[in-house]
Amino acid sequence: MSKGQETRQRLLDSAQQLMYSRSYSDVGVQEICKDAKVQKGSFYHFFSSKSALTVEVLEQLKMQMIKSILMPAFAKDLTPAKRFERFIEYAYQYQVQIKEEYGYVLGCPMGNIALEMSTQDEKIRKKVEMLFESIFYVFVDVLDDAKAVGEIDSESDTLELAQVCLAYGEGVLLMAKTKNDPEVIKQLLPHVSKLIGFKANKQ
Amino acid sequence: MSKGQETRQRLLDSAQQLMYSRSYSDVGVQEICKDAKVQKGSFYHFFSSKSALTVEVLEQLKMQMIKSILMPAFAKDLTPAKRFERFIEYAYQYQVQIKEEYGYVLGCPMGNIALEMSTQDEKIRKKVEMLFESIFYVFVDVLDDAKAVGEIDSESDTLELAQVCLAYGEGVLLMAKTKNDPEVIKQLLPHVSKLIGFKANKQ
Repeated sequence: MSKGQETRQRLLDSAQQLMYSRSYSDVGVQEICKDAKVQKGSFYHFFSSKSALTVEVLEQLKMQMIKSILMPAFAKDLTPAKRFERFIEYAYQYQVQIKEEYGYVLGCPMGNIALEMSTQDEKIRKKVEMLFESIFYVFVDVLDDAKAVGEIDSESDTLELAQVCLAYGEGVLLMAKTKNDPEVIKQLLPHVSKLIGFKANKQ
Repeated sequence: MSKGQETRQRLLDSAQQLMYSRSYSDVGVQEICKDAKVQKGSFYHFFSSKSALTVEVLEQLKMQMIKSILMPAFAKDLTPAKRFERFIEYAYQYQVQIKEEYGYVLGCPMGNIALEMSTQDEKIRKKVEMLFESIFYVFVDVLDDAKAVGEIDSESDTLELAQVCLAYGEGVLLMAKTKNDPEVIKQLLPHVSKLIGFKANKQ
């Protein structure tokens, strides 16, 4: 990595961490530069604005979420239903760890920015919408597997169910953040199996 | 209403409308005063800070939500399952109307502030947590009715189901805001009946 790339990466990492723990609006370019140990003048060499930086932060976040939670949780060594159980456990453990580190359940970094910024910055709104779409396809994939092995009804609309799962996951993380309690995830997220209609839960 | 009460009310209404359409952090005391046509000096006669004002705005919001959506939707002239259907229709219509007025789906004003402010202002976080609890009890009531008339299983844990409903509703509103599309509500919210386990949906 060149010195320029390293500087750019430090700005991304500082912005991600500061915004996730507080909010987009509460963190300014000056603070991001200070945290990243970068001169403010250099910032605009790398990013045209805080908004442009945030779009890149969101992309980085998505990659991290997919790599550290979604891919390992939904790896195909387990049945689709068991993959969902592992996903719930990983999502819970992640927020437990976040609370230990920051003192707060920080919830979903994408959902946070979506609710704060969707009416104020169209590029950010569109970016979050696209990121949710990437996660949506991860759900479609596991739901299609569930259908193929007969764990869910053969007539299930997996495209719609994937949207339902995503919405429920975001809602549970919102409640966990509001209550500042990761146990909310462990208590509420397993109900997702009723939304999906896993046959084991119908018996 | 005295002149002082009227001034106070104008500040609350301006803050509510400005914050709901943008965000807490994006709206300052100066702009609230300008919108409410109140001298900035008077602001601190009524509220000790923007945070204190916001706690009162949240209380006002809750009362409006209960009066304009929750009470009419869950009125006992229909069966519990039908009340949920009416709630979905009202929540949808409300966001359709909001989008016509503002150009954006604004989602849940309480959820918005929860995700933006929960790590930054403990009084605001606690207030949103309490407001969600008020709404939670509205759900408990209708779910208990559903249990009493046999629409859901007699062993259903209505306290847990009410939390599940609340989380799902917030998640659906989050997705509708992110996609800036009220149709998301109409498409996804009816799946709440699977979470509740209405017997008609099992047949």
